[in-house]
Amino acid sequence: MSSFFDSRWVPCPDHVTELGEGLPKGFRAGAAAAGIRAEGILDVGLLVCDAPDAVSAARFTRSGVLAAPVLVSRDHARTSALRAVVANSGNANAATGEQGMNVALAMQVAAAEAAGVPSDQVAVNSTGVIGVPLDIDRVAAGIAHAARSLHAGGDVELNQAIMTTDAFPKRASLAVALPSGTVRLSAQAKGAGMIEPAFATMLCFAQTDARLEAETADLLLGVCVKRSFDRISVDGQLSTNDTAILQCSGSSGVVVAPASDDELKLGEALDALLRQLAILMVRDGEGAGRVGRVVVRGGDRQDVERCARAVANSPLVKTALHGADPNWGRIAQAVGQAMPGTAPLALGIAIEGIAVCRDGAAVPYDVVALNRAAAEREIEYEVALPGEGAETEVFFSDLGHEYVTINAEYTT
Amino acid sequence: MSSFFDSRWVPCPDHVTELGEGLPKGFRAGAAAAGIRAEGILDVGLLVCDAPDAVSAARFTRSGVLAAPVLVSRDHARTSALRAVVANSGNANAATGEQGMNVALAMQVAAAEAAGVPSDQVAVNSTGVIGVPLDIDRVAAGIAHAARSLHAGGDVELNQAIMTTDAFPKRASLAVALPSGTVRLSAQAKGAGMIEPAFATMLCFAQTDARLEAETADLLLGVCVKRSFDRISVDGQLSTNDTAILQCSGSSGVVVAPASDDELKLGEALDALLRQLAILMVRDGEGAGRVGRVVVRGGDRQDVERCARAVANSPLVKTALHGADPNWGRIAQAVGQAMPGTAPLALGIAIEGIAVCRDGAAVPYDVVALNRAAAEREIEYEVALPGEGAETEVFFSDLGHEYVTINAEYTT
Repeated sequence: MSSFFDSRWVPCPDHVTELGEGLPKGFRAGAAAAGIRAEGILDVGLLVCDAPDAVSAARFTRSGVLAAPVLVSRDHARTSALRAVVANSGNANAATGEQGMNVALAMQVAAAEAAGVPSDQVAVNSTGVIGVPLDIDRVAAGIAHAARSLHAGGDVELNQAIMTTDAFPKRASLAVALPSGTVRLSAQAKGAGMIEPAFATMLCFAQTDARLEAETADLLLGVCVKRSFDRISVDGQLSTNDTAILQCSGSSGVVVAPASDDELKLGEALDALLRQLAILMVRDGEGAGRVGRVVVRGGDRQDVERCARAVANSPLVKTALHGADPNWGRIAQAVGQAMPGTAPLALGIAIEGIAVCRDGAAVPYDVVALNRAAAEREIEYEVALPGEGAETEVFFSDLGHEYVTINAEYTT
Repeated sequence: MSSFFDSRWVPCPDHVTELGEGLPKGFRAGAAAAGIRAEGILDVGLLVCDAPDAVSAARFTRSGVLAAPVLVSRDHARTSALRAVVANSGNANAATGEQGMNVALAMQVAAAEAAGVPSDQVAVNSTGVIGVPLDIDRVAAGIAHAARSLHAGGDVELNQAIMTTDAFPKRASLAVALPSGTVRLSAQAKGAGMIEPAFATMLCFAQTDARLEAETADLLLGVCVKRSFDRISVDGQLSTNDTAILQCSGSSGVVVAPASDDELKLGEALDALLRQLAILMVRDGEGAGRVGRVVVRGGDRQDVERCARAVANSPLVKTALHGADPNWGRIAQAVGQAMPGTAPLALGIAIEGIAVCRDGAAVPYDVVALNRAAAEREIEYEVALPGEGAETEVFFSDLGHEYVTINAEYTT
């Protein structure tokens, strides 16, 4: 079996073992084909934590246009004590007004009943087309059906039920050896376009049977999301529906105390898991072929963030990445756009460790070696700004014909 | 002959007559095939104003990575008294360091000699690939050759000499009836990609034989650039080389006094000219098929600017435009991204006058009429933000397969 951790940028931590599939103790999941997407395709998923004292944490999109399910999860659910997660694909229930809010609230109630948990412990998720009413009857029937199929290996079906333009599933099931004992950690994610972390939308549901305080779960999820889903871009488009949730059943009996080595090791595992899932979203990238990583160093925090986003979101850089063209002039152009009024900027650029530009000017380089490097599956670009201090990275997809085909034809 | 003013958004002013080609009195231009681009293709152009007291104005890219020719024109030329303009295509002379500066300065001197004017009255322009040394010997030979071909109808060749990925020339020659007499106004422009106003780069050289003060020329060019090249986006990419120049020979004898009706009428003509040229750049747009115009009203100036740019630069909106898909959910998503923390945003959206979203929620609309409207050549999107006051527009191209093909293959 090929490894889940197949990016050179995310080595599998030594204390982590891949299990292939299956949820941690205390979790069950199921799915149903409710007819929101095409006939027979799984499009409603339900995840239930059987531990009454489960703790959780959640992060949501920062868009000014929030989908109804995000508003329900954020404002009508106890995000630190989620017992169940319900999700549908094929319809984002966004820009749907009061009717949409009523549907999202009804989804929450239906899932709570089906899972046997209080409705304020249910998070609601939707992904798909924006601005189309979501049929609550179909969703409710799907939830009831999914509830009858709940099982410990349901992560596979749950993952399928949240796919839209995704070309492949994105999930992992891990054993994590902590100093205090071994716990399980799993996650199911989706995302291919409208990613920054962004019509595909990104969703990620993570579970562990470690016993954490809610504050620890929130800290771990917050740090790991910042280093994963916050550092990727397919098309620079922030979705109305992005949601990441971590639930902890405690069913393993292994306690992860704040500031302990257990917390550190669990954090390392969650970090690797979410970073690899984030890279899978970029690699999926609605027809993407290559993944780029831009690392910007120097300047201040705002400078490196602006420059990294400018490079990652430039259609010129992305088409060059697609064409295996080490066209570093487009990197220089993007950085210049991000740094108005700084000319002449003593910019440095390296591609796969080969310096091509120093102090703002081209330097001689091995063209054959550079062309070979640009044809790899994962390409690293380094940008050096004047000054010291700040550093950041963004992972990004190339821009090829499939993105155009998918998005010119993925219809309302 | 089809009209130059062929966009519904830029009617030809009543006092303007199209002449087809030819420069205003006092101007001559020529071009040469210097071997910078493929053998036999015009790639060096020279424009000369024979009036010793010519006045002019110029605007340059705001990028932090400025090409050597921009630095020379900005810092080593009297931009209010330009007599000559020299330009090459096929090489941007950007990110070329000190060597590049020496080449750009040598271009200025060579053009001054060839044109018989002081070197500090010559503007230098380059467009093409970034980060590759420009061969000064070829350029100098081209300048000498272009100088021997200077003639009043040279605007056609000059325009050809500045094309790179442009699919068609962009120029006009107009007669403008002012209260004090009729003057001539012409312009030659290029631009198809890296446009915001932005590896193609945008260049625009405009000429009139009206007699203006340098301050008036600067005011007119400044206002008109803000309403034209500053309001377009092909790919959201600001170039290292963008330059717009207006030269006034005064050779018609018609004086355009500050704050006069003459100034108003000349301004209207220049405004229409530059707006139509800007729309041509968007329409060219490296394989673009449709042109979108997004108008954002409400909020404050920053809000409308941010939202208009977010819509115009969204690859999801652009691929939908390409696919003739009135997918307004992607407009809502882009606006939401531009307005973080404002949810629930009482957003309004109309496409070709058909309201599709009001107060943040879908409203019923005529689907057949909307689909018909989305298949037109020019599509208008209106976005209403809460509040009153501000308004802006951005013209933008669609994103289709040709953009990917051109940019994945346009090589270093």
